[in-house]
Amino acid sequence: MIEMLINGSATTTLDARDRGLHYGDGLFETIAVRDGSPARWDAHMQRLALGCQRLAIPAIDASLLAGEAMRLCAGVERGVLKIIITRGGGGRGYRAPAMDAVRPTRIVALHSWPDYPDIFWTEGVSVRICATRLGHNPLLAGIKHLNRLEQVLARSEWDDPGVVEGLMLDQDGNVIEGTMTNLFIVRDGRLRTPDVSQCGVAGVMRGWILDAARGLGIACEIGAVTLEDIAFAEEVFLCNCLISVWPVREIEGKRFEVDGAVTRRIVSKLRYAAMSRQR
Amino acid sequence: MIEMLINGSATTTLDARDRGLHYGDGLFETIAVRDGSPARWDAHMQRLALGCQRLAIPAIDASLLAGEAMRLCAGVERGVLKIIITRGGGGRGYRAPAMDAVRPTRIVALHSWPDYPDIFWTEGVSVRICATRLGHNPLLAGIKHLNRLEQVLARSEWDDPGVVEGLMLDQDGNVIEGTMTNLFIVRDGRLRTPDVSQCGVAGVMRGWILDAARGLGIACEIGAVTLEDIAFAEEVFLCNCLISVWPVREIEGKRFEVDGAVTRRIVSKLRYAAMSRQR
Repeated sequence: MIEMLINGSATTTLDARDRGLHYGDGLFETIAVRDGSPARWDAHMQRLALGCQRLAIPAIDASLLAGEAMRLCAGVERGVLKIIITRGGGGRGYRAPAMDAVRPTRIVALHSWPDYPDIFWTEGVSVRICATRLGHNPLLAGIKHLNRLEQVLARSEWDDPGVVEGLMLDQDGNVIEGTMTNLFIVRDGRLRTPDVSQCGVAGVMRGWILDAARGLGIACEIGAVTLEDIAFAEEVFLCNCLISVWPVREIEGKRFEVDGAVTRRIVSKLRYAAMSRQR
Repeated sequence: MIEMLINGSATTTLDARDRGLHYGDGLFETIAVRDGSPARWDAHMQRLALGCQRLAIPAIDASLLAGEAMRLCAGVERGVLKIIITRGGGGRGYRAPAMDAVRPTRIVALHSWPDYPDIFWTEGVSVRICATRLGHNPLLAGIKHLNRLEQVLARSEWDDPGVVEGLMLDQDGNVIEGTMTNLFIVRDGRLRTPDVSQCGVAGVMRGWILDAARGLGIACEIGAVTLEDIAFAEEVFLCNCLISVWPVREIEGKRFEVDGAVTRRIVSKLRYAAMSRQR
Protein backbone atom coordinates (compact mmCIF):
# COMPACT_ATOMS: atom_id res chain seq x y z
CA MET A 1 0.00 0.00 0.00
CA ILE A 2 1.35 3.44 -0.89
CA GLU A 3 1.34 5.81 2.06
CA MET A 4 2.63 9.01 0.53
CA LEU A 5 2.97 10.69 -2.85
CA ILE A 6 5.20 13.73 -3.23
CA ASN A 7 4.64 15.49 -6.54
CA GLY A 8 3.16 12.24 -7.80
CA SER A 9 6.04 9.95 -6.78
CA ALA A 10 5.81 7.30 -4.08
CA THR A 11 8.37 8.62 -1.61
CA THR A 12 8.51 9.90 1.94
CA THR A 13 11.51 12.21 1.52
CA LEU A 14 11.36 15.88 0.78
CA ASP A 15 13.97 18.40 -0.34
CA ALA A 16 15.07 20.06 2.92
CA ARG A 17 15.23 23.41 1.10
CA ASP A 18 11.45 23.45 0.80
CA ARG A 19 9.85 26.69 2.02
CA GLY A 20 7.22 24.63 3.79
CA LEU A 21 9.90 23.63 6.30
CA HIS A 22 11.75 26.95 6.44
CA TYR A 23 8.77 29.25 6.94
CA GLY A 24 5.64 27.10 7.15
CA ASP A 25 5.01 28.62 3.73
CA GLY A 26 2.08 26.46 2.68
CA LEU A 27 -1.29 24.94 3.46
CA PHE A 28 -2.85 21.65 4.44
CA GLU A 29 -6.13 19.75 4.46
CA THR A 30 -7.12 16.82 6.65
CA ILE A 31 -9.77 14.70 4.95
CA ALA A 32 -11.82 11.72 6.14
CA VAL A 33 -11.57 8.66 3.90
CA ARG A 34 -14.58 6.36 3.72
CA ASP A 35 -14.98 3.32 1.51
CA GLY A 36 -12.14 4.23 -0.79
CA SER A 37 -13.00 7.92 -1.28
CA PRO A 38 -12.07 11.20 0.35
CA ALA A 39 -15.18 12.78 1.89
CA ARG A 40 -16.28 16.40 1.24
CA TRP A 41 -13.61 16.68 -1.43
CA ASP A 42 -15.03 19.76 -3.14
CA ALA A 43 -15.26 21.75 0.09
CA HIS A 44 -11.66 20.86 0.97
CA MET A 45 -10.51 21.87 -2.52
CA GLN A 46 -12.38 25.16 -2.21
CA ARG A 47 -10.66 26.02 1.06
CA LEU A 48 -7.31 24.95 -0.33
CA ALA A 49 -7.85 27.19 -3.36
CA LEU A 50 -8.74 30.10 -1.07
CA GLY A 51 -5.56 29.46 0.92
CA CYS A 52 -3.44 29.40 -2.24
CA GLN A 53 -5.02 32.66 -3.34
CA ARG A 54 -4.39 34.27 0.06
CA LEU A 55 -0.73 33.20 0.10
CA ALA A 56 -0.26 33.84 -3.64
CA ILE A 57 0.70 30.23 -4.28
CA PRO A 58 -0.24 29.18 -7.86
CA ALA A 59 -3.54 27.30 -7.95
CA ILE A 60 -3.19 23.52 -7.66
CA ASP A 61 -4.50 21.34 -10.48
CA ALA A 62 -7.48 19.84 -8.62
CA SER A 63 -7.92 16.92 -11.01
CA LEU A 64 -4.28 15.93 -10.61
CA LEU A 65 -4.68 16.10 -6.84
CA ALA A 66 -7.94 14.12 -7.04
CA GLY A 67 -6.20 11.40 -9.03
CA GLU A 68 -3.45 11.13 -6.45
CA ALA A 69 -5.94 11.13 -3.60
CA MET A 70 -7.96 8.32 -5.22
CA ARG A 71 -4.80 6.33 -5.80
CA LEU A 72 -3.99 6.44 -2.07
CA CYS A 73 -7.58 5.88 -0.93
CA ALA A 74 -8.24 2.83 -3.16
CA GLY A 75 -9.40 -0.05 -0.98
CA VAL A 76 -9.22 2.00 2.24
CA GLU A 77 -12.37 1.52 4.28
CA ARG A 78 -11.56 4.22 6.84
CA GLY A 79 -8.55 6.49 6.96
CA VAL A 80 -7.29 10.03 7.01
CA LEU A 81 -5.86 11.76 3.98
CA LYS A 82 -3.57 14.69 4.66
CA ILE A 83 -2.68 17.01 1.80
CA ILE A 84 0.14 19.53 2.14
CA ILE A 85 0.82 22.18 -0.50
CA THR A 86 3.89 24.35 -0.08
CA ARG A 87 5.42 27.15 -2.15
CA GLY A 88 8.19 24.67 -3.03
CA GLY A 89 11.89 25.39 -3.14
CA GLY A 90 13.59 28.73 -3.04
CA GLY A 91 16.78 30.37 -1.88
CA ARG A 92 17.44 31.57 1.65
CA GLY A 93 15.32 34.54 2.65
CA TYR A 94 11.65 35.34 3.12
CA ARG A 95 11.22 36.69 -0.38
CA ALA A 96 9.29 34.17 -2.47
CA PRO A 97 10.16 33.43 -6.09
CA ALA A 98 8.01 35.27 -8.63
CA MET A 99 4.60 33.61 -9.04
CA ASP A 100 5.45 32.15 -12.47
CA ALA A 101 8.67 30.63 -11.12
CA VAL A 102 6.96 28.92 -8.17
CA ARG A 103 6.76 25.11 -8.38
CA PRO A 104 4.54 24.15 -5.44
CA THR A 105 5.27 20.93 -3.57
CA ARG A 106 2.31 18.55 -3.42
CA ILE A 107 2.26 15.97 -0.62
CA VAL A 108 -0.62 13.51 -0.33
CA ALA A 109 -0.38 11.08 2.59
CA LEU A 110 -2.60 8.41 4.02
CA HIS A 111 -2.85 7.92 7.79
CA SER A 112 -4.77 5.44 9.90
CA TRP A 113 -8.15 6.38 11.31
CA PRO A 114 -7.91 7.72 14.88
CA ASP A 115 -9.62 5.25 17.19
CA TYR A 116 -11.67 7.59 19.33
CA PRO A 117 -13.99 5.69 21.70
CA ASP A 118 -17.71 5.61 20.83
CA ILE A 119 -18.59 7.36 24.08
CA PHE A 120 -17.13 10.61 22.70
CA TRP A 121 -20.18 10.70 20.45
CA THR A 122 -22.75 9.12 22.74
CA GLU A 123 -21.81 10.65 26.09
CA GLY A 124 -19.93 13.74 24.98
CA VAL A 125 -16.42 14.90 25.73
CA SER A 126 -14.69 16.76 28.52
CA VAL A 127 -12.93 19.96 27.44
CA ARG A 128 -10.47 22.35 29.04
CA ILE A 129 -9.59 26.01 28.47
CA CYS A 130 -6.03 26.43 27.15
CA ALA A 131 -3.66 29.10 28.42
CA THR A 132 -2.03 29.40 24.96
CA ARG A 133 -3.87 32.07 23.00
CA LEU A 134 -4.30 32.77 19.30
CA GLY A 135 -2.68 35.91 17.89
CA HIS A 136 -4.74 38.06 15.55
CA ASN A 137 -3.85 38.11 11.91
CA PRO A 138 -6.68 38.68 9.43
CA LEU A 139 -4.40 37.77 6.50
CA LEU A 140 -3.87 34.28 7.89
CA ALA A 141 -7.22 33.75 9.64
CA GLY A 142 -9.65 31.19 8.24
CA ILE A 143 -7.17 29.35 6.02
CA LYS A 144 -5.39 26.17 7.06
CA HIS A 145 -1.77 27.24 6.77
CA LEU A 146 1.32 25.47 8.09
CA ASN A 147 2.12 27.93 10.92
CA ARG A 148 0.67 25.83 13.73
CA LEU A 149 2.90 26.42 16.74
CA GLU A 150 0.02 27.96 18.69
CA GLN A 151 -1.93 24.70 18.36
CA VAL A 152 1.15 22.62 19.21
CA LEU A 153 1.75 24.65 22.37
CA ALA A 154 -1.93 24.54 23.35
CA ARG A 155 -2.09 20.76 22.85
CA SER A 156 1.03 20.33 24.98
CA GLU A 157 -0.71 21.87 28.00
CA TRP A 158 -2.39 18.65 29.12
CA ASP A 159 -1.76 14.93 29.25
CA ASP A 160 -4.92 13.70 30.95
CA PRO A 161 -6.55 11.29 28.46
CA GLY A 162 -9.92 12.10 30.04
CA VAL A 163 -9.68 15.62 28.61
CA VAL A 164 -10.32 15.30 24.92
CA GLU A 165 -9.94 18.83 23.57
CA GLY A 166 -8.81 22.28 24.66
CA LEU A 167 -10.51 25.55 23.77
CA MET A 168 -8.31 28.40 22.59
CA LEU A 169 -9.06 32.07 23.25
CA ASP A 170 -7.71 34.97 21.27
CA GLN A 171 -5.62 37.76 22.77
CA ASP A 172 -8.84 39.64 23.64
CA GLY A 173 -10.18 36.69 25.62
CA ASN A 174 -12.82 35.59 23.15
CA VAL A 175 -13.23 31.86 22.58
CA ILE A 176 -12.26 30.97 19.02
CA GLU A 177 -11.96 27.20 18.56
CA GLY A 178 -10.55 23.95 19.86
CA THR A 179 -6.96 22.98 19.04
CA MET A 180 -8.27 20.69 16.28
CA THR A 181 -11.99 21.45 16.17
CA ASN A 182 -14.44 24.29 15.65
CA LEU A 183 -16.90 25.18 18.38
CA PHE A 184 -20.66 25.74 18.35
CA ILE A 185 -22.79 26.76 21.31
CA VAL A 186 -26.55 26.91 21.73
CA ARG A 187 -27.79 29.76 23.86
CA ASP A 188 -31.43 30.79 24.15
CA GLY A 189 -32.13 28.19 21.44
CA ARG A 190 -29.84 29.93 18.93
CA LEU A 191 -26.75 28.34 17.44
CA ARG A 192 -23.59 30.42 17.52
CA THR A 193 -20.02 29.83 16.36
CA PRO A 194 -17.02 32.14 16.80
CA ASP A 195 -16.03 34.55 14.08
CA VAL A 196 -12.73 33.42 12.52
CA SER A 197 -11.90 36.60 10.63
CA GLN A 198 -9.05 37.57 13.00
CA CYS A 199 -7.70 34.11 13.90
CA GLY A 200 -8.79 30.49 13.81
CA VAL A 201 -9.63 28.09 11.02
CA ALA A 202 -12.84 28.13 8.97
CA GLY A 203 -13.38 24.37 9.19
CA VAL A 204 -15.05 22.48 6.38
CA MET A 205 -17.40 20.80 8.86
CA ARG A 206 -18.15 24.19 10.44
CA GLY A 207 -19.19 25.41 7.00
CA TRP A 208 -21.35 22.34 6.46
CA ILE A 209 -23.09 22.83 9.82
CA LEU A 210 -23.75 26.52 9.13
CA ASP A 211 -25.43 25.53 5.85
CA ALA A 212 -27.31 22.67 7.51
CA ALA A 213 -28.62 24.94 10.27
CA ARG A 214 -29.95 27.37 7.67
CA GLY A 215 -31.59 24.48 5.84
CA LEU A 216 -33.21 23.27 9.06
CA GLY A 217 -34.46 26.74 9.99
CA ILE A 218 -32.27 26.87 13.13
CA ALA A 219 -31.34 30.45 14.03
CA CYS A 220 -27.59 30.64 13.66
CA GLU A 221 -25.05 33.41 14.00
CA ILE A 222 -21.32 33.91 13.57
CA GLY A 223 -19.94 36.26 16.20
CA ALA A 224 -18.00 36.74 19.40
CA VAL A 225 -18.26 33.90 21.91
CA THR A 226 -17.13 34.77 25.44
CA LEU A 227 -16.50 32.44 28.36
CA GLU A 228 -19.69 33.89 29.83
CA ASP A 229 -21.61 32.83 26.71
CA ILE A 230 -20.28 29.34 27.28
CA ALA A 231 -21.19 29.38 30.96
CA PHE A 232 -24.78 30.20 30.00
CA ALA A 233 -24.96 27.86 27.00
CA GLU A 234 -27.53 25.07 26.96
CA GLU A 235 -25.60 22.91 24.52
CA VAL A 236 -22.02 22.95 23.26
CA PHE A 237 -20.49 20.84 20.53
CA LEU A 238 -17.21 20.51 18.64
CA CYS A 239 -16.76 19.55 15.02
CA ASN A 240 -14.25 18.70 12.36
CA CYS A 241 -14.23 16.50 9.27
CA LEU A 242 -12.90 13.44 11.07
CA ILE A 243 -15.15 13.43 14.12
CA SER A 244 -18.17 15.16 12.54
CA VAL A 245 -19.74 16.29 15.84
CA TRP A 246 -18.84 15.60 19.46
CA PRO A 247 -21.25 16.94 22.07
CA VAL A 248 -19.42 18.61 24.95
CA ARG A 249 -20.33 17.11 28.31
CA GLU A 250 -18.26 19.37 30.48
CA ILE A 251 -15.88 22.34 30.32
CA GLU A 252 -13.73 22.87 33.41
CA GLY A 253 -16.44 21.60 35.74
CA LYS A 254 -19.42 23.28 34.06
CA ARG A 255 -21.77 20.61 32.63
CA PHE A 256 -23.90 20.75 29.47
CA GLU A 257 -26.80 18.79 28.06
CA VAL A 258 -25.32 16.17 25.72
CA ASP A 259 -28.48 15.16 23.91
CA GLY A 260 -29.80 18.68 23.41
CA ALA A 261 -32.44 19.45 20.81
CA VAL A 262 -30.30 21.54 18.47
CA THR A 263 -27.26 19.23 18.59
CA ARG A 264 -29.60 16.30 17.90
CA ARG A 265 -31.08 17.94 14.82
CA ILE A 266 -27.61 18.72 13.40
CA VAL A 267 -26.37 15.18 14.09
CA SER A 268 -29.49 13.67 12.49
CA LYS A 269 -28.96 15.77 9.39
CA LEU A 270 -25.30 14.65 9.27
CA ARG A 271 -26.37 10.98 9.51
CA TYR A 272 -28.95 11.45 6.83
CA ALA A 273 -26.38 13.09 4.54
CA ALA A 274 -23.94 10.21 5.17
CA MET A 275 -26.63 7.65 4.35
CA SER A 276 -27.60 9.51 1.19
CA ARG A 277 -23.99 9.39 0.00
CA GLN A 278 -23.83 5.64 0.59
CA ARG A 279 -26.90 4.96 -1.51
CA MET B 1 32.03 21.11 -0.72
CA ILE B 2 29.29 19.88 1.61
CA GLU B 3 26.29 22.16 1.62
CA MET B 4 24.03 20.51 4.15
CA LEU B 5 24.18 18.07 7.04
CA ILE B 6 20.98 16.52 8.37
CA ASN B 7 21.53 14.78 11.70
CA GLY B 8 25.20 14.63 10.79
CA SER B 9 24.79 13.10 7.32
CA ALA B 10 25.59 14.88 4.07
CA THR B 11 22.15 14.90 2.46
CA THR B 12 19.57 17.42 1.32
CA THR B 13 16.51 15.24 1.83
CA LEU B 14 14.32 15.17 4.88
CA ASP B 15 11.61 12.81 6.07
CA ALA B 16 8.38 14.46 4.93
CA ARG B 17 6.72 13.41 8.21
CA ASP B 18 8.89 15.90 10.12
CA ARG B 19 6.91 18.20 12.42
CA GLY B 20 9.01 21.10 11.17
CA LEU B 21 7.13 20.84 7.88
CA HIS B 22 3.71 19.98 9.28
CA TYR B 23 3.48 22.66 11.96
CA GLY B 24 6.60 24.81 11.73
CA ASP B 25 7.41 23.02 14.99
CA GLY B 26 11.00 24.14 15.37
CA LEU B 27 13.56 26.93 15.40
CA PHE B 28 16.30 28.40 13.26
CA GLU B 29 19.42 30.54 13.41
CA THR B 30 21.04 32.48 10.58
CA ILE B 31 24.73 32.96 11.23
CA ALA B 32 27.43 34.95 9.41
CA VAL B 33 30.46 32.90 8.40
CA ARG B 34 33.84 34.68 8.24
CA ASP B 35 37.22 33.13 7.53
CA GLY B 36 36.07 29.59 8.18
CA SER B 37 34.12 30.23 11.40
CA PRO B 38 30.55 31.03 12.39
CA ALA B 39 30.43 34.46 14.05
CA ARG B 40 28.75 35.15 17.40
CA TRP B 41 28.29 31.41 17.89
CA ASP B 42 27.65 31.54 21.65
CA ALA B 43 24.93 34.16 21.33
CA HIS B 44 23.21 32.13 18.61
CA MET B 45 23.43 28.99 20.73
CA GLN B 46 21.97 30.86 23.70
CA ARG B 47 18.95 32.01 21.71
CA LEU B 48 18.51 28.53 20.22
CA ALA B 49 18.59 27.03 23.72
CA LEU B 50 15.98 29.56 24.87
CA GLY B 51 13.81 28.64 21.89
CA CYS B 52 14.12 24.91 22.65
CA GLN B 53 13.16 25.59 26.25
CA ARG B 54 10.16 27.68 25.21
CA LEU B 55 8.91 25.01 22.78
CA ALA B 56 9.90 22.13 25.11
CA ILE B 57 12.22 20.63 22.51
CA PRO B 58 15.08 18.71 24.19
CA ALA B 59 18.25 20.80 24.40
CA ILE B 60 20.59 20.37 21.45
CA ASP B 61 24.13 19.12 22.09
CA ALA B 62 25.98 22.35 21.34
CA SER B 63 29.37 20.71 20.83
CA LEU B 64 27.89 18.30 18.28
CA LEU B 65 26.29 21.24 16.48
CA ALA B 66 29.55 23.22 16.67
CA GLY B 67 31.44 20.32 15.09
CA GLU B 68 28.97 20.14 12.23
CA ALA B 69 29.05 23.91 11.77
CA MET B 70 32.86 23.93 11.63
CA ARG B 71 32.81 21.07 9.12
CA LEU B 72 30.62 23.13 6.77
CA CYS B 73 32.45 26.41 7.36
CA ALA B 74 35.96 25.03 6.75
CA GLY B 75 37.67 27.10 4.06
CA VAL B 76 34.67 29.41 3.63
CA GLU B 77 35.80 33.02 3.55
CA ARG B 78 32.29 34.51 3.66
CA GLY B 79 29.00 32.68 3.83
CA VAL B 80 25.78 32.18 5.71
CA LEU B 81 25.14 29.21 7.96
CA LYS B 82 21.52 28.34 8.60
CA ILE B 83 20.67 25.95 11.41
CA ILE B 84 17.21 24.45 11.72
CA ILE B 85 16.15 22.38 14.73
CA THR B 86 12.74 20.71 14.64
CA ARG B 87 10.88 18.47 17.06
CA GLY B 88 11.52 15.65 14.57
CA GLY B 89 9.03 13.02 13.44
CA GLY B 90 5.70 12.22 14.96
CA GLY B 91 2.30 10.94 14.02
CA ARG B 92 -0.50 13.03 12.60
CA GLY B 93 -1.92 15.54 15.08
CA TYR B 94 -0.71 18.56 17.03
CA ARG B 95 0.15 16.56 20.12
CA ALA B 96 3.93 16.21 20.39
CA PRO B 97 5.61 12.99 21.50
CA ALA B 98 6.63 12.93 25.17
CA MET B 99 9.84 14.90 25.76
CA ASP B 100 11.97 11.75 26.28
CA ALA B 101 10.68 10.26 23.02
CA VAL B 102 11.49 13.36 20.94
CA ARG B 103 14.37 12.95 18.49
CA PRO B 104 14.96 16.48 17.18
CA THR B 105 15.99 16.96 13.57
CA ARG B 106 19.22 18.93 13.13
CA ILE B 107 19.81 20.66 9.81
CA VAL B 108 22.99 22.68 9.23
CA ALA B 109 23.27 24.29 5.81
CA LEU B 110 25.72 26.61 4.13
CA HIS B 111 24.52 29.36 1.81
CA SER B 112 26.37 31.94 -0.25
CA TRP B 113 26.91 35.41 1.17
CA PRO B 114 24.22 37.86 -0.01
CA ASP B 115 25.85 40.44 -2.25
CA TYR B 116 24.37 43.63 -0.90
CA PRO B 117 25.90 46.74 -2.50
CA ASP B 118 28.36 48.76 -0.41
CA ILE B 119 26.14 51.83 -0.58
CA PHE B 120 23.67 50.14 1.80
CA TRP B 121 26.28 50.75 4.51
CA THR B 122 27.74 54.01 3.26
CA GLU B 123 24.65 55.85 2.03
CA GLY B 124 21.94 54.03 3.99
CA VAL B 125 18.88 52.19 2.81
CA SER B 126 15.36 53.09 1.77
CA VAL B 127 12.63 51.42 3.81
CA ARG B 128 8.87 51.02 3.48
CA ILE B 129 6.06 50.38 5.97
CA CYS B 130 4.42 47.00 5.40
CA ALA B 131 0.66 46.45 5.48
CA THR B 132 1.12 42.93 6.89
CA ARG B 133 1.11 43.12 10.67
CA LEU B 134 2.51 40.91 13.40
CA GLY B 135 0.04 39.10 15.64
CA HIS B 136 0.68 39.13 19.38
CA ASN B 137 1.81 35.96 21.04
CA PRO B 138 4.07 36.29 24.09
CA LEU B 139 4.79 32.53 24.07
CA LEU B 140 6.35 32.79 20.61
CA ALA B 141 7.75 36.33 20.78
CA GLY B 142 11.50 36.81 20.85
CA ILE B 143 12.48 33.32 19.71
CA LYS B 144 13.29 32.46 16.10
CA HIS B 145 10.69 29.80 15.38
CA LEU B 146 9.67 28.36 12.02
CA ASN B 147 6.23 30.03 11.81
CA ARG B 148 7.23 32.80 9.44
CA LEU B 149 4.25 33.39 7.16
CA GLU B 150 3.86 36.95 8.44
CA GLN B 151 7.38 37.76 7.24
CA VAL B 152 6.80 35.97 3.93
CA LEU B 153 3.60 37.96 3.31
CA ALA B 154 5.23 41.24 4.34
CA ARG B 155 8.23 40.63 2.06
CA SER B 156 5.88 39.86 -0.84
CA GLU B 157 4.37 43.34 -0.66
CA TRP B 158 7.07 45.01 -2.76
CA ASP B 159 9.30 44.27 -5.74
CA ASP B 160 11.13 47.58 -6.10
CA PRO B 161 14.85 46.75 -5.67
CA GLY B 162 15.38 50.35 -4.48
CA VAL B 163 13.42 49.51 -1.33
CA VAL B 164 15.65 47.34 0.80
CA GLU B 165 13.55 46.51 3.83
CA GLY B 166 9.99 46.80 5.12
CA LEU B 167 9.00 47.70 8.66
CA MET B 168 6.31 45.62 10.32
CA LEU B 169 3.82 46.98 12.85
CA ASP B 170 1.92 44.91 15.38
CA GLN B 171 -1.87 44.76 15.56
CA ASP B 172 -1.84 47.86 17.82
CA GLY B 173 0.08 49.89 15.25
CA ASN B 174 3.42 49.92 17.07
CA VAL B 175 6.54 49.44 14.96
CA ILE B 176 8.25 46.15 15.90
CA GLU B 177 10.96 45.25 13.39
CA GLY B 178 11.91 44.84 9.75
CA THR B 179 11.02 41.63 7.91
CA MET B 180 14.60 40.39 8.44
CA THR B 181 16.13 43.04 10.70
CA ASN B 182 15.67 44.70 14.07
CA LEU B 183 15.16 48.44 14.30
CA PHE B 184 16.82 51.14 16.39
CA ILE B 185 15.93 54.82 16.42
CA VAL B 186 17.67 57.79 17.98
CA ARG B 187 15.34 60.47 19.34
CA ASP B 188 16.49 63.34 21.54
CA GLY B 189 19.91 61.69 21.54
CA ARG B 190 18.58 58.48 23.13
CA LEU B 191 18.70 55.09 21.44
CA ARG B 192 15.46 53.11 21.44
CA THR B 193 14.47 49.69 20.06
CA PRO B 194 11.01 48.12 20.08
CA ASP B 195 9.99 45.76 22.83
CA VAL B 196 9.69 42.22 21.42
CA SER B 197 7.84 40.62 24.32
CA GLN B 198 4.53 40.36 22.40
CA CYS B 199 5.84 39.68 18.89
CA GLY B 200 9.04 40.04 16.88
CA VAL B 201 12.46 38.44 17.14
CA ALA B 202 15.09 39.28 19.75
CA GLY B 203 17.94 39.43 17.25
CA VAL B 204 21.47 38.47 18.26
CA MET B 205 22.82 41.71 16.75
CA ARG B 206 20.12 43.68 18.57
CA GLY B 207 21.36 42.14 21.81
CA TRP B 208 24.95 42.99 20.96
CA ILE B 209 24.03 46.61 20.20
CA LEU B 210 22.09 46.98 23.46
CA ASP B 211 25.18 45.77 25.34
CA ALA B 212 27.48 47.98 23.26
CA ALA B 213 25.35 51.07 23.90
CA ARG B 214 25.51 50.43 27.64
CA GLY B 215 29.28 50.04 27.38
CA LEU B 216 29.54 53.32 25.47
CA GLY B 217 27.35 55.17 27.94
CA ILE B 218 24.67 55.84 25.30
CA ALA B 219 21.22 56.17 26.88
CA CYS B 220 19.23 53.27 25.54
CA GLU B 221 15.72 51.98 26.14
CA ILE B 222 13.53 49.10 25.04
CA GLY B 223 9.94 50.18 24.61
CA ALA B 224 7.10 51.08 22.30
CA VAL B 225 8.12 52.74 19.03
CA THR B 226 5.32 54.49 17.17
CA LEU B 227 5.29 55.84 13.63
CA GLU B 228 5.34 59.28 15.25
CA ASP B 229 8.54 58.36 17.12
CA ILE B 230 10.04 57.45 13.76
CA ALA B 231 8.84 60.69 12.16
CA PHE B 232 10.65 62.64 14.88
CA ALA B 233 13.76 60.44 14.99
CA GLU B 234 17.15 61.95 14.22
CA GLU B 235 18.73 58.66 13.22
CA VAL B 236 17.32 55.25 12.33
CA PHE B 237 19.21 52.05 11.68
CA LEU B 238 18.53 48.37 11.01
CA CYS B 239 20.59 45.42 12.17
CA ASN B 240 21.02 41.69 11.92
CA CYS B 241 23.97 39.31 12.10
CA LEU B 242 24.60 39.32 8.35
CA ILE B 243 24.45 43.05 7.66
CA SER B 244 25.58 44.26 11.11
CA VAL B 245 24.13 47.79 10.77
CA TRP B 246 22.51 49.60 7.87
CA PRO B 247 21.71 53.27 8.44
CA VAL B 248 18.23 54.15 7.18
CA ARG B 249 18.27 56.98 4.67
CA GLU B 250 14.55 57.27 4.10
CA ILE B 251 11.24 55.76 5.20
CA GLU B 252 8.31 56.44 2.88
CA GLY B 253 9.63 59.86 1.89
CA LYS B 254 10.82 60.97 5.35
CA ARG B 255 14.63 61.38 5.35
CA PHE B 256 17.12 60.70 8.15
CA GLU B 257 20.71 61.57 8.88
CA VAL B 258 22.83 58.64 7.68
CA ASP B 259 26.07 59.53 9.42
CA GLY B 260 24.50 60.46 12.74
CA ALA B 261 26.57 60.60 15.92
CA VAL B 262 24.97 57.64 17.73
CA THR B 263 24.91 55.34 14.68
CA ARG B 264 28.56 56.24 14.05
CA ARG B 265 29.58 55.28 17.59
CA ILE B 266 27.80 51.93 17.37
CA VAL B 267 29.32 51.17 13.94
CA SER B 268 32.80 52.11 15.20
CA LYS B 269 32.42 49.78 18.14
CA LEU B 270 31.28 47.00 15.78
CA ARG B 271 34.35 47.55 13.56
CA TYR B 272 36.64 47.57 16.56
CA ALA B 273 35.09 44.30 17.83
CA ALA B 274 35.54 42.73 14.38
CA MET B 275 39.20 43.80 14.26
CA SER B 276 39.81 42.48 17.76
CA ARG B 277 38.46 39.07 16.73
CA GLN B 278 40.76 38.96 13.72
CA ARG B 279 43.85 39.60 15.79
